[in-house]
Parts: sequence; structure tokens; C-alpha cells
Amino acid sequence: MDTTLQATDSEALIPDPAAGSADPLKTSAAHARSAVLEELIRQDPGRFRVLTGDRPTGRLHLGHYFGTLHNRIRLQDLGVETYVIIADYQVLTDRDIADNLTEYVEELVLDYLAIGVDPARSTIFTHSAVPALNQLMLPFLSLVSVAELNRNPTVKDEIAHSRQSAVSGLMFTYPVHQAADILFCKANLVPVGQDQLPHLEITRAVARRFNDRYGHGGAVFPRPDALLSSAPLLLGMDGAKMSKSRGNAITLAADADETARLIKGAKTDSERFITYDPAARPEVSSLLLLAGLCQDRAPEQIASEIGSAGAAALKRTVTEAVNEYLAPIRARRTEYAQDRAYLRRVLREGNERANAVADATLAEVRTAMNSHY
Amino acid sequence: MDTTLQATDSEALIPDPAAGSADPLKTSAAHARSAVLEELIRQDPGRFRVLTGDRPTGRLHLGHYFGTLHNRIRLQDLGVETYVIIADYQVLTDRDIADNLTEYVEELVLDYLAIGVDPARSTIFTHSAVPALNQLMLPFLSLVSVAELNRNPTVKDEIAHSRQSAVSGLMFTYPVHQAADILFCKANLVPVGQDQLPHLEITRAVARRFNDRYGHGGAVFPRPDALLSSAPLLLGMDGAKMSKSRGNAITLAADADETARLIKGAKTDSERFITYDPAARPEVSSLLLLAGLCQDRAPEQIASEIGSAGAAALKRTVTEAVNEYLAPIRARRTEYAQDRAYLRRVLREGNERANAVADATLAEVRTAMNSHY
Repeated sequence: MDTTLQATDSEALIPDPAAGSADPLKTSAAHARSAVLEELIRQDPGRFRVLTGDRPTGRLHLGHYFGTLHNRIRLQDLGVETYVIIADYQVLTDRDIADNLTEYVEELVLDYLAIGVDPARSTIFTHSAVPALNQLMLPFLSLVSVAELNRNPTVKDEIAHSRQSAVSGLMFTYPVHQAADILFCKANLVPVGQDQLPHLEITRAVARRFNDRYGHGGAVFPRPDALLSSAPLLLGMDGAKMSKSRGNAITLAADADETARLIKGAKTDSERFITYDPAARPEVSSLLLLAGLCQDRAPEQIASEIGSAGAAALKRTVTEAVNEYLAPIRARRTEYAQDRAYLRRVLREGNERANAVADATLAEVRTAMNSHY
Repeated sequence: MDTTLQATDSEALIPDPAAGSADPLKTSAAHARSAVLEELIRQDPGRFRVLTGDRPTGRLHLGHYFGTLHNRIRLQDLGVETYVIIADYQVLTDRDIADNLTEYVEELVLDYLAIGVDPARSTIFTHSAVPALNQLMLPFLSLVSVAELNRNPTVKDEIAHSRQSAVSGLMFTYPVHQAADILFCKANLVPVGQDQLPHLEITRAVARRFNDRYGHGGAVFPRPDALLSSAPLLLGMDGAKMSKSRGNAITLAADADETARLIKGAKTDSERFITYDPAARPEVSSLLLLAGLCQDRAPEQIASEIGSAGAAALKRTVTEAVNEYLAPIRARRTEYAQDRAYLRRVLREGNERANAVADATLAEVRTAMNSHY
């Protein structure tokens, strides 16, 4: 049971745009809905509350950053109230993390602050500190069948690749815990990748069933909308998926020299002339995309500027773009890292705020369920 | 999903001595251990803490009383500290109960007070009021595999008789919730019937695994012992298992006339001469046993006193014995029923005490797990 969740190498709440187990029709509808939502957010961000977060599995990297983190900051800065959960109970099957949980959690807070999560506007909190949130698991578990939980793609995948005894009760019930994360703060918007759509469906079903059964004609919980982000697919420096465990990722915390070294060693191809062609030249194109994201330019344009200067020039360009882009983030990270007391205060205050919200929601739930004795 | 737990007609924490799905070798060892424990309790009751309880599924009857309730009062009166949980989250799949939860819970408190549960010495509390207890589900779920949960006899039974989609996530994870019930207050003694032994094995495994993993050489949780009670098997008035849903049970709350009517209609057999022979004459023997339990006499003796006077005389004897035995319990019940404010205060104070204990245990758990940020 030791590496159950880790083995899938998907950070629980972080979308993986490469995975696509969702119903294509539903995905298409979700894309259309997301476009409408983006317009509504621009018009009136105060209508929305976002729940997002990560498992504290180690330092965040550029794949995370351009995949989801950047989008969160965008929503926060548009004025959307944001709750950011650090899923510290969803890493227990990794012994190395479990043995150093405080450190992993503080590193994640550090990354958040560095990229611009503003604790005054966004609530950063941990599962383990919010009992009333966790209690919601119980009534929610009564609204979901074992057959539904078995249909969770992550669980199916794990059983197919390993065996049922490798799936912990925690992993099996994870979509219900996620429903508690989203519904305790009555978030109505959840930024997700396509592979997360089935999980959100469980949350939506729980909200609907709870309202039907205990709402007395009203709605205790909103049915949250998925906000599909058009997350670019960045490859790691070896051409495989960017992942901490592969050692092919550029972390936000890396310094300029380490970044240069990693990019210098990046896999390219034998063709000297640089072009942007993701299908035929995935490694070169991913490097171009990375530079483009950092400079807010089209990767095709960067390719045409490099042309016959080849892979070495490409790597110099990418290194410069990444280091320039990350410089302010890294400077903030270094600054915050020197003030551990501040990190702990951010977390403590976030947990206090989350507890106040969770206590209020649980009181409402208990009244709805006639269990407020 | 509506009648999942109800369909099995086994009140979750109440042992059913007729069921016998446990390993016979383990059962025999548990019996031997229980005899030793009884001696230790007599010597030093202060060493022990008991967790017991019920699902609030309706009025308690004589099957419950002589099966488990009587034994709980005995332990309390011997000086063993007792926690009594009202499992109000484990009845949600029964819509009738869920819609009238407050009433079901208050009726159970009333039954407890009537039989002699003393709120000054025993802590009566509900699942829904103790978030820190419920939070323990999360770390505990990480220590149990889906394969283990599938081996739970109640779940196997339900899947065999109905289908997987009829098993709720709450029912599936119930043994882990029970581990949280027992371990939050560090109970080291759990009175059970044989059919509950597999559930307690999960609790013992959770305690051992948690200590191994997070105990830093010590033990956060005790590994609770099963105290097997020699619960007599009482049949209902129709000769089937005594059960509220069959309408064949004499409830503690019934009055003397209703009791007389129920016993008058009890099934017997065609043989006039009354003998105690549980194998050949189950109905007559169960009535004799009931009278014997009420009068603290051997059923054989009662049989020989009735002899050829036949079933009518037997029923008169049983009616008199039951009504005399229950008279003080019923008088107390009537008295307490007039003071609903007192019932609510008992529950509120019990919940407060349970919360204090649960908060302390959770703080210890969070420190052990390095999640006290």
C-alpha cells in the first residue's frame, strides 16, 4: 500500500491535459460551458468562489505552473474568491512524504506565495486542520454507491495495473473527500483538466442528492461548474511527461544555473533547422512552447527567429526566457524562505478561516439533516 | 440505496449471537480471553474503558436488553468507564429514520436512561456532533485496503443478496468509522457478539498499523480487546428472530397491557406438557428463557413448575415475570419522557465530553503524523 497514489504520478487535484478518459460529448459541453463562464467571470467575479489545490508531493515545477497555477493567479487577480487546499491526508501512502509532512507542506506554501497567491485574498489551508470539512465525508458517503466509486478512472487504473489490495480505502473514497473540499466552502467553480471531469461529476451528484434529500425544497449546496483550462502540454527535459519523480522537471525553486544545466541537457532531435511542429517534433516544440509561454509570444515566431541556428541557440533562448520569467518568482521565494514564522502564520490564518467556513456549513448541514440536537 | 443497512436488520453495534461468520478458532480464543478479562475487570475496573452503542433505529426491545444492554449496565456498575455512541450517521440510508432523526435519537437516550445508563459515569454522544472523531476516518482509511473492506461479512452479504450499487460508500467504510469510534476515546474493551469479531479485527489492525507507522516507538492507540458476552438467544413472539421490523418484539417502552397481549399471541407448539428443550421446542423454550432471565432463575425450574398446566399457564407466568421486571424501567422511562429538556442536556453534555476527548486525541494524532503546523 505504500506507493498507491504516487504510482499514478498524477498530483491529485492537478489536471493532466494528456489524459482523456472523459466522455468526449461531455468534454465538448464542458468546453462550451467554460467559455460562457469565462465571460461571466469577467463581468462579475464576485459571483464566483473557486476551490483548487494540490497534494504536497514536492516542489512545484513549470508543468504545474503553466498547467494550473498561472490560471489560479489569473482568477484570483480577476477578483474571484479562492480557496486553496493542501491535501495533506492524500499523501499518506508515500512514506517519504508522510515522514516529512511539515516540510512538504511548508514548501508548497512557499511556492504559492512566490507565484503570487495572496493570503489576504486566497485562503490556503490543509485537510488535517479542518475537522468539520472532513466530517462532511460521512453524510456524503451515504449518497454514493460502491459501484460509483469503482468507476473512478484512477481506481480502475490502479486495480488494472496492480491489484485491489494496493488500493487504500483513502484512495477509493477520494472523490467523496474532494466533494467535501469543494462543497464545505460552497465553491461554485473548479478549474480542472479533462481527466478531472469524472471526479467533479461525483461532487455534482453529491450536491444534487444532498439538496434533493435534505434541502426541504431549497439548495444547501451549489452544483459547482468545471472551468476547463486550455493547459499547454509541456514535456520534461527528457521528452517524457514533466514530472518530479523523473527528475526531468524545472522547479520554480531551481536557480538560474540549475535551470541552464537542465535545459542544456534537454533532448531535441537530429534536424538542425528549428520549426514548431508538436506532432512530428515534440521535444523541440515543447521547448519553443516553454519559451513562448515565458515571453507571451507564439512559439512559431520564436522558431522562425532561431531557424538554422539550431538546438544550441534554441536552448540558449529557452534558458534566458525561463530564467527571466522566473527571476521575480524566485526572488520572492528566497525572501519568504527566510521567514518560516510567516509561512506558518499564513497557514494558521488560512486554517482558521477555513474552519470558520467549515463550521458554519456543518451547522447548516446538521440542521438540514435534523441532527442538531 | 435506501434500505441498505436496514435490510440486514442487524443493529450495527449490537451483536447477533445467532450469526456465526467468524473463524471458530479465533472465536474460541476470544472466549478464553474474555474469561480472563472478566476476572481483570473484577480486580481493577479502573484499568478499562468501554466503547459501545447503537444505531438509532427505533425503540429497544427485550432482545437488545438481554443481549447487550444488561451487560453494559453491569460493566458500568462494576466501575468501568463507558462511552455510548449513538450512530446517527449510520442510519441515513433509511429514509424514515433520516427524516425523523431527532426523535429517533431522543427515544434512544430515553431507553438508555430508563435501563440505568448513568450520564454522570457514562458518556452518551452522537457521531454527528464530534467532528474530530469523524476526521480520524481519513488517516485510518489510508491504513486499510479496499480488499480488506470487501471481506467485511455485512458487505459480502449485501452484495450477495442484492448488488454492489446497493452498498453505499458509508456502509463499505463502516468498519473504519467504527475504528474511529473505538480509538478516539482509546477504549480498550469492546463488548461484542461473535458476528462483530471481524469488525473489531479491523480496529485492532488500524491501531497496530498506526502505532507502527506513526508511534515513534510508542503506542498512540491501545489494541482493544473483544469482550464476548454469553448473550442468550431470545426469539420474537412469532418464533422468528426478535426484531422491531417484524413486529414480534416486546419493547422496553411497551405498557403492561401491550406486553400481555403480545405474549398471549405468542407461538408455542401442540404439546401440552411444558419442558425446556431449545433444540426441539424453540418457541416454548424461548418463553421459558425470557421468564428465567427476568426472575434470575433457571428455565428448567420454571418449566417443571408449570408442567401440565400448558401454554396458557406458561404465558401467564412469562407476562407476569416480564411486566414485573420491566416495571421500574418503564416507570423511569415515563418520568424521563416528560422532561425533553433533560434528555437534550444529557446529550449536549455527553457530546461536549466526547468532543473534549476527541480533540485531545486528534491533537495527539496530528503531532504523531507531523501535521500540526
